[in-house]
Amino acid sequence: MKTKELAANAKKASYILATANAADKNRALLAMAEALERRSAEILVENAEDVAEGRKNGLTPALIDRLLLDEERLRGMAKSLRDVAVLADPIGEVVAGWKTPEGLEIQKVRVPFGVILVVYEARPNVTVDAAALCLKTGNAVILRGGSDAYRSNRILAEAIAGAAIEAGLPGDSVQFVADKDRGALLELLQMKDQIDLVIPRGGEALKEFLLENSKVPVIYAAGGNCHVYVDEAADLKQALAITINSKCQRPGVCNAAETLLVHEAVAAKFIPVVVNALNERKVKLYGDARTREIVGDAEVKVARATDKHYATEFLGMEMAIKVVEGLEEAVEHINHYGTGHSEAIVTRDLNASRRFTEAVDAAVVYVNASTRFTDGGVFGLGAEIGISTQKLHARGPLALREITSTKYIVTGKGHVR
Amino acid sequence: MKTKELAANAKKASYILATANAADKNRALLAMAEALERRSAEILVENAEDVAEGRKNGLTPALIDRLLLDEERLRGMAKSLRDVAVLADPIGEVVAGWKTPEGLEIQKVRVPFGVILVVYEARPNVTVDAAALCLKTGNAVILRGGSDAYRSNRILAEAIAGAAIEAGLPGDSVQFVADKDRGALLELLQMKDQIDLVIPRGGEALKEFLLENSKVPVIYAAGGNCHVYVDEAADLKQALAITINSKCQRPGVCNAAETLLVHEAVAAKFIPVVVNALNERKVKLYGDARTREIVGDAEVKVARATDKHYATEFLGMEMAIKVVEGLEEAVEHINHYGTGHSEAIVTRDLNASRRFTEAVDAAVVYVNASTRFTDGGVFGLGAEIGISTQKLHARGPLALREITSTKYIVTGKGHVR
Repeated sequence: MKTKELAANAKKASYILATANAADKNRALLAMAEALERRSAEILVENAEDVAEGRKNGLTPALIDRLLLDEERLRGMAKSLRDVAVLADPIGEVVAGWKTPEGLEIQKVRVPFGVILVVYEARPNVTVDAAALCLKTGNAVILRGGSDAYRSNRILAEAIAGAAIEAGLPGDSVQFVADKDRGALLELLQMKDQIDLVIPRGGEALKEFLLENSKVPVIYAAGGNCHVYVDEAADLKQALAITINSKCQRPGVCNAAETLLVHEAVAAKFIPVVVNALNERKVKLYGDARTREIVGDAEVKVARATDKHYATEFLGMEMAIKVVEGLEEAVEHINHYGTGHSEAIVTRDLNASRRFTEAVDAAVVYVNASTRFTDGGVFGLGAEIGISTQKLHARGPLALREITSTKYIVTGKGHVR
Repeated sequence: MKTKELAANAKKASYILATANAADKNRALLAMAEALERRSAEILVENAEDVAEGRKNGLTPALIDRLLLDEERLRGMAKSLRDVAVLADPIGEVVAGWKTPEGLEIQKVRVPFGVILVVYEARPNVTVDAAALCLKTGNAVILRGGSDAYRSNRILAEAIAGAAIEAGLPGDSVQFVADKDRGALLELLQMKDQIDLVIPRGGEALKEFLLENSKVPVIYAAGGNCHVYVDEAADLKQALAITINSKCQRPGVCNAAETLLVHEAVAAKFIPVVVNALNERKVKLYGDARTREIVGDAEVKVARATDKHYATEFLGMEMAIKVVEGLEEAVEHINHYGTGHSEAIVTRDLNASRRFTEAVDAAVVYVNASTRFTDGGVFGLGAEIGISTQKLHARGPLALREITSTKYIVTGKGHVR
């Protein structure tokens, strides 16, 4: 099918989806879960072919693991569909309403975007998650997955579209496009009249590509160069636990901390303890001169930090450390090097916590809690499609409500101006 | 000053503005109003030079009128500054708040974007309006005005920045950049780390330029190809008044109606009346075959409509007419030809009004009211910087709240994951 036709079909489907009842959309989600279970054997066969080809093409073990499906992972995908089905439908929510002095009744109502293009890489579970969140919010979705998962994504999308039809919704609610050279993607990115939103799930290269080429609005999820700042009034036991958790609990994700900032008043006491604890956990450390001076045996324990270290999202067991003169220097450091994702202060001082949360420019600012909590599920928002670090439209977890728009409905009695 | 430096200064100012109190920001707005009045003679001298040069350069009378300032217009600008000062400050508003099962306290709080770039054309009053709305919401603003108004904009921006300093706020809160060849604009549009949002006020050419070139997120205001649909259950007296008002009250603006759709069941009765009324007001009409048949003397009263007429935003005393078989055809026509701005139905039928408001994809959908009401002031939102027709972030009037973002503040007691 031509890309143009695909987009036109998505638009048509979106008009029907926009006025679909929650009951119908939920029935489709449950039918999708069933379809995954019923067709698991077929799906695993296609996935095995992707995996075999991936191995032949020299994909890294980490990428192969992302690509790989098994019975358990399919069950997990089916469960997540059922979880989305029981969430409240945000469409139709009256966000605000009032009457003007002239007697016009104004309502601001939550509505779908229309057509959402989700661009992602190897993980086939994104096919299912993205389709579920878009369908639940009445959006038609065009899935543009990575070519490594072509066969897996194709059969998953086919199973999902079939389930939509079963529930009486348009099959074009969920469409899948695979192109190896970004040709179709480039075409889709020009179609600002057919496609209402692009959500990328991928690295910096994909982001740059979209910035360069998309005429459709995009919600960007930047990486997370996140910080923990240990204030002079910190409970140092909490500071130690929060630092270790923020760094080590899952170092490969965007809300893991990359730099530790320590107030000079507690540096002599805190730094030796935290350095030992991180060294024990095999975290490679990079410190400024003061940190290295305090540590003493710095050549072994803490390497010399450069500007580059402070600017790096390690996504692994590495961490930069810096002693700061006070809260203001910490704020400046974070606003300079940070990516506006998740930033934490540890303090018992009310004014310090207020100043930090007010002055730090980030999607989520923590007081006495680990940066690792940034997550739609943990926040109580339900399933999410990513974490937005841009300020336009949605900042933080992109859950159901965040992939909707609003419209004004204004009712008069023959009012003219 | 170099563009880079200008952007860096704006960013610095934005951090201070973000935590400024409403009282300080309001004091700056009042000082701005005073400065305009105090320096009116100077401002009018500069403006007169712009006007003289504009005349020499052959600007149309309409453009000269947009450019021209006088005592009364300056008083109007000062008044609008004072009006903004008394509006509620949206910054710091707790949009939502809750506690997670683990005891984390989550607050979603309204915050400024940071730095907003406003790109506009000849009208110097935009300099003042945009600066006021941005400052009120704690955003630093970079004003990129048209070169025709260079001297006027420069002195207005200078007066405004001086007033900000008087109130203890950074002078770089409001900066002005003028470039004749879009060189500086192009540079600014690459600075996605310094500039958080672009708001254009201009025509389709500017929009296309930004779509092509901006790496900074943009809120677009499309033109308004707006419709009035007269349902079979319409009160035809209301329908007549609403049609005339939507078309004629101010035909040059984006919320004026361009096409009239009439249900076939009332066409024979309504069309002759509305055609006469519009003809009387010298509105040039383009109708489909059925309209022309009903009218009879069509060669005189209603020209033949083509697809192009239905797709045109006339912005003047012209209107297309079409007879439709029913509400669904009206909805389809609107979703096909409309630009998602303001769309009206006239009906006494509850189901028809519900179906129309649900199915029409537009920023504002009216029931029994003129399309001309789409306006921040009329809606009770206060001053606005434009009408957004995109679905991302803000749809409809861009008032104070719409040029803000949010951040999450999460407070724990040493919580780790």
